[in-house]
Amino acid sequence: MTDSVVIKEVAARDGLQAQPKHLTLEQRQQLIEALAETGVPELEIGSFVSPKAVPQMAGTDVLAANLPAPAISYSALVPNMKGYDAAIGCGVKTLAIALAATEEMNQNNIRMSLEQTFAMGEDLMTRANNEGVSVHAYLAVAFECPYEGPVSPDVVLSQARQLMACKPARLVIADTIGAANPGAVRDLMKPLVEEFGADALGCHFHDTRAMAMANVYAALEVGVRQFDSSAGGLGGCPFAPGAKGNVATEDVVMLCEAMGYSTGIAMPRLLTAVELLSEFIGSPQGGRAHYWLSKNAA
Amino acid sequence: MTDSVVIKEVAARDGLQAQPKHLTLEQRQQLIEALAETGVPELEIGSFVSPKAVPQMAGTDVLAANLPAPAISYSALVPNMKGYDAAIGCGVKTLAIALAATEEMNQNNIRMSLEQTFAMGEDLMTRANNEGVSVHAYLAVAFECPYEGPVSPDVVLSQARQLMACKPARLVIADTIGAANPGAVRDLMKPLVEEFGADALGCHFHDTRAMAMANVYAALEVGVRQFDSSAGGLGGCPFAPGAKGNVATEDVVMLCEAMGYSTGIAMPRLLTAVELLSEFIGSPQGGRAHYWLSKNAA
Repeated sequence: MTDSVVIKEVAARDGLQAQPKHLTLEQRQQLIEALAETGVPELEIGSFVSPKAVPQMAGTDVLAANLPAPAISYSALVPNMKGYDAAIGCGVKTLAIALAATEEMNQNNIRMSLEQTFAMGEDLMTRANNEGVSVHAYLAVAFECPYEGPVSPDVVLSQARQLMACKPARLVIADTIGAANPGAVRDLMKPLVEEFGADALGCHFHDTRAMAMANVYAALEVGVRQFDSSAGGLGGCPFAPGAKGNVATEDVVMLCEAMGYSTGIAMPRLLTAVELLSEFIGSPQGGRAHYWLSKNAA
Repeated sequence: MTDSVVIKEVAARDGLQAQPKHLTLEQRQQLIEALAETGVPELEIGSFVSPKAVPQMAGTDVLAANLPAPAISYSALVPNMKGYDAAIGCGVKTLAIALAATEEMNQNNIRMSLEQTFAMGEDLMTRANNEGVSVHAYLAVAFECPYEGPVSPDVVLSQARQLMACKPARLVIADTIGAANPGAVRDLMKPLVEEFGADALGCHFHDTRAMAMANVYAALEVGVRQFDSSAGGLGGCPFAPGAKGNVATEDVVMLCEAMGYSTGIAMPRLLTAVELLSEFIGSPQGGRAHYWLSKNAA
């Protein structure tokens, strides 16, 4: 156990990817620079997906070629081997892949069976290991699936073992639809930490049902020390006013630091990045403690 | 340990008491009726304080005389023995008193020393015991004081022992300014539950710094089963847009029920009460999961 928490900032990917407001490449570049200034150790810059399917992420290759502060670990999401090639071609050294824990989610989301998705992920991780590329394997809808409902922890444990056999740099348990509760997080993450160790694991939470911060605490309590979060809490359904997105980086930082874990993140710089994000998106962004922070963190 | 959680609904008191919009007595009556319809077991109806100091709470005696559904445990806040007399005179059988854990908070808030405040509380509890009246003793600013900063758990434990000697029906540990973190909640509530038992304790959290839900979970994990909350999360500083208030009843209910604890509260009726509250206050109220709930709870 360490006294620090590693935050992976995902606003530039998970935050932006579903926004109706498409940021320009220059804006995305500025956002990445502002986020890099915060001191965050890991930063997801975008994804290598079809620009037809996700126009918000077009040009991630250009961003990858112009990254600031090389001390940060930059990563990008890739959906398949084609994305792997594109990302590696631009010098990205950490890739994220998302594998859904249920048949229906895979079928509906990427029109592949669960077996096909996992086989693709295993091929990709095997290749990455051979080529010295790090992979963050995301197990999506690990608590509940929008099509199949609650996902059994036994299923997730079994899938985790299958994926861990391919030695990803990190297995990220993702509550994709914000349906986890802290008791479920505790019950799932405890055996995972015991079996694989905290260094091999991360958690990715959304605040859809108001439980993201409780889930972060529950994961911390069973030893998890690596969390995804999004500056300003960006990442909710943009068409649903008030629909909460990813757990906000500023809220997670405050929780961790209040509990004595260092994150390396400078809050005033993070709030500056959130301001920039608000300007680009065209509406105020901010975690739940934004008002308090704006008065107290400078 | 039981598999149910007792929620004390405080919107009609802690929620309304600082709002710039003063509800009429008829509106407060309607709100209490709507909240009573939710199935909540405990409901704070107002406070017996000077109408000059807190005009929002004027006429609580009238409300007390017209309470619906007698199965609910109704309570009111009283600041002193004069308030005690007034409340008892209207038939209120459970009184709440607030004693701040720090010298400066008592001095600044009610112009009494900490010693004087505790002596007043002890006198009141002694009288209440003799007269068969229940008292919820609130230990305010139990985690951090706006004047003195962090409050030592040892101080709170010692004050808790002092107050418990007067046998209140409940000792409520109150994070008055929303400064607690879940680690601090765990470390304070664990010894309290071990020493006094869960039935004698409650927690009162504010979401000022985004940690209220994590704090509820932390308290649940060490055995606390009684929580204050406010429908719609009403109770933030009304002059500060975005300043979060009391932890929202709907969020706490969702957390508890998701973890398998029953609360007895019917979510659709609670959302109806929040709608009424929004109408009366003149702006949308709602906990953090409000959007999700509005689509899924009916």
